[in-house]
Amino acid sequence: MSTTTPTSTRQWVLARRPTGAPILSGPSATFSLVTAELPPLAAGQVLCRVRYISNDPGQRGFIGIGVADDRMYVPPVHVGAAMRAGVIAEVVASLAPSIAVGQLVMTLHLGQWAELVVLDAADCQPLAPPPGMAVTHFLGALGAPGLTAYYGVVEVLKARPQHTLVVSGAAGATGGMVVQIAKRLVGCARVVGIAGGADKCAWVRDALGADACVDYKSASFLADLARATDGYVDLYFDNVGGDVLDAMLPRMQKGGTVAVCGAISTYNDAGPMKLKNWMEVVSMRLNFKGFILLDYAEQIPSAIGELVKAVQEGKVVLGDEHETLVETGIEGVPETWMKLFEGVNRGKLITKLV
Amino acid sequence: MSTTTPTSTRQWVLARRPTGAPILSGPSATFSLVTAELPPLAAGQVLCRVRYISNDPGQRGFIGIGVADDRMYVPPVHVGAAMRAGVIAEVVASLAPSIAVGQLVMTLHLGQWAELVVLDAADCQPLAPPPGMAVTHFLGALGAPGLTAYYGVVEVLKARPQHTLVVSGAAGATGGMVVQIAKRLVGCARVVGIAGGADKCAWVRDALGADACVDYKSASFLADLARATDGYVDLYFDNVGGDVLDAMLPRMQKGGTVAVCGAISTYNDAGPMKLKNWMEVVSMRLNFKGFILLDYAEQIPSAIGELVKAVQEGKVVLGDEHETLVETGIEGVPETWMKLFEGVNRGKLITKLV
Repeated sequence: MSTTTPTSTRQWVLARRPTGAPILSGPSATFSLVTAELPPLAAGQVLCRVRYISNDPGQRGFIGIGVADDRMYVPPVHVGAAMRAGVIAEVVASLAPSIAVGQLVMTLHLGQWAELVVLDAADCQPLAPPPGMAVTHFLGALGAPGLTAYYGVVEVLKARPQHTLVVSGAAGATGGMVVQIAKRLVGCARVVGIAGGADKCAWVRDALGADACVDYKSASFLADLARATDGYVDLYFDNVGGDVLDAMLPRMQKGGTVAVCGAISTYNDAGPMKLKNWMEVVSMRLNFKGFILLDYAEQIPSAIGELVKAVQEGKVVLGDEHETLVETGIEGVPETWMKLFEGVNRGKLITKLV
Repeated sequence: MSTTTPTSTRQWVLARRPTGAPILSGPSATFSLVTAELPPLAAGQVLCRVRYISNDPGQRGFIGIGVADDRMYVPPVHVGAAMRAGVIAEVVASLAPSIAVGQLVMTLHLGQWAELVVLDAADCQPLAPPPGMAVTHFLGALGAPGLTAYYGVVEVLKARPQHTLVVSGAAGATGGMVVQIAKRLVGCARVVGIAGGADKCAWVRDALGADACVDYKSASFLADLARATDGYVDLYFDNVGGDVLDAMLPRMQKGGTVAVCGAISTYNDAGPMKLKNWMEVVSMRLNFKGFILLDYAEQIPSAIGELVKAVQEGKVVLGDEHETLVETGIEGVPETWMKLFEGVNRGKLITKLV
């Protein structure tokens, strides 16, 4: 390690747990920006400069209230601790024989909202994207969201060519890949997206290949959804919960299956989720299957390989337009993350730290 | 047919669909009592005097609003038509060779809230209970509720001796049999009931054999439920939905399964069902399985035989205390049915028409 190795970093820590939407500033702010000492590098560790931060709806769960620690699939972020996130970072000092200074590494959720982080080499994955492929896709279409889409469609829903499949959040990082995987890899008979706004819906149809995409912000949403799902739906991949999930229950085929991946529409809502159509679960004998990517951890490397191959063969389309990069200094990190809940992103929302 | 065969009957018809709780009297009454001509008996039909009427939460679904006809598992009752119900009736005139006058017959849901009904012999099941067994049990523990419990526990939840199982509505017709079947037939390691009131809970423990029963009306319900489900729950048989379902989500074991049989707590509520804990479905990878008894129709006769045998061998306990009989004239039929939603019954609530 050279003598110029940094010994401190600016980082965002959790100041207090939000009950509803996180608050960005003022005396009740959810996060606060602090300068913290970096721990001395131990054997097997690397010091990294964070280049890209992954913005995920699931991170809201790390800082929520009312969920017991042992009921979370990853540990919560405690008050006073740095906010956790997946990151792509560049190694600036290394005490790990396997990782050289200058190497780009990724960690799925053990990075931080920080300029610099110390990571165990065992928690890092060296990144070397194939030619022409942006490294950031490994946070999106070829990372956790794309893999979640893959396992949700293939393993949880067991989608087959004869199926009609609907996915909400269809313009998002996970939902967009659900559309492509269901339509272009599995070859589902009909794939319908649900997204917010006419522009996103057009993109889900034209760029991602959905047979139809319904705008949940439209006043005619329920009628549009009924028209787009005439004949009913075998499989529903739910990213959003709430009213859209409720609207989908009467559109499910008898014996249909809902993969419950998330419920972003409810994360910043202090109130309960409201379902008017719950009895459809009984009358139509519906199945719900909650799932998370971690359950498929051992199969992830081979699945990434399969997705990369699908991109290289042109079966899955992946370009700059399939992610939304926001450049900012460390000051803008929480604000950028909050854009997720406004639905501003098309594909993966990534913070590029500059 | 003798010349004294009745040609008309008093019957309750649906006057208007209720949005919330059915209204028993006044200008907005849900039902009205009318005298109707009986259709002339055709070949293969029987005229029957109704002796017992089955009161089921699911009948609320026949008269609800907002559910499309093709999304109901049995056809709705239309405004102006007689309210439908399972009944035990005595044949007073027969044009069916297989059914003699004086025979007791049962129909699962094609009877009516009426003094007399004309039924197709094909829709009737002659009843001849084994010695010492009340005929009314074939509307309850040995009828649709008991069979629903049986298939829910054995086929839907696939309960095994190593499992912990919770059932709501545990003092009701279905829930009570869930307790007995899970504990006494399957031999589940731990069976916990949820019921309303200390008396019912004591009965669920002492008479039905539950290891514990939690009172959802108690101020300490959530703490009591947590204590009774320490170590979490593999299987949950849900009869009630709403707040109790919500309370159970954080008590489920990772990968646990919820059999969704009904949601009686919500049937008379015009508002949506509210769930604060939906994200447990994702974080704990929960499964939900909606089901109805009709899907197992072909296996019903053998399952009834199995339950009768279990009673005769003393494995399932079944006596007068396992049903609640209310004697009334035809005038009191809707009011008796409404007692279901007040939870006054222990075991099956049956109207004895006198």
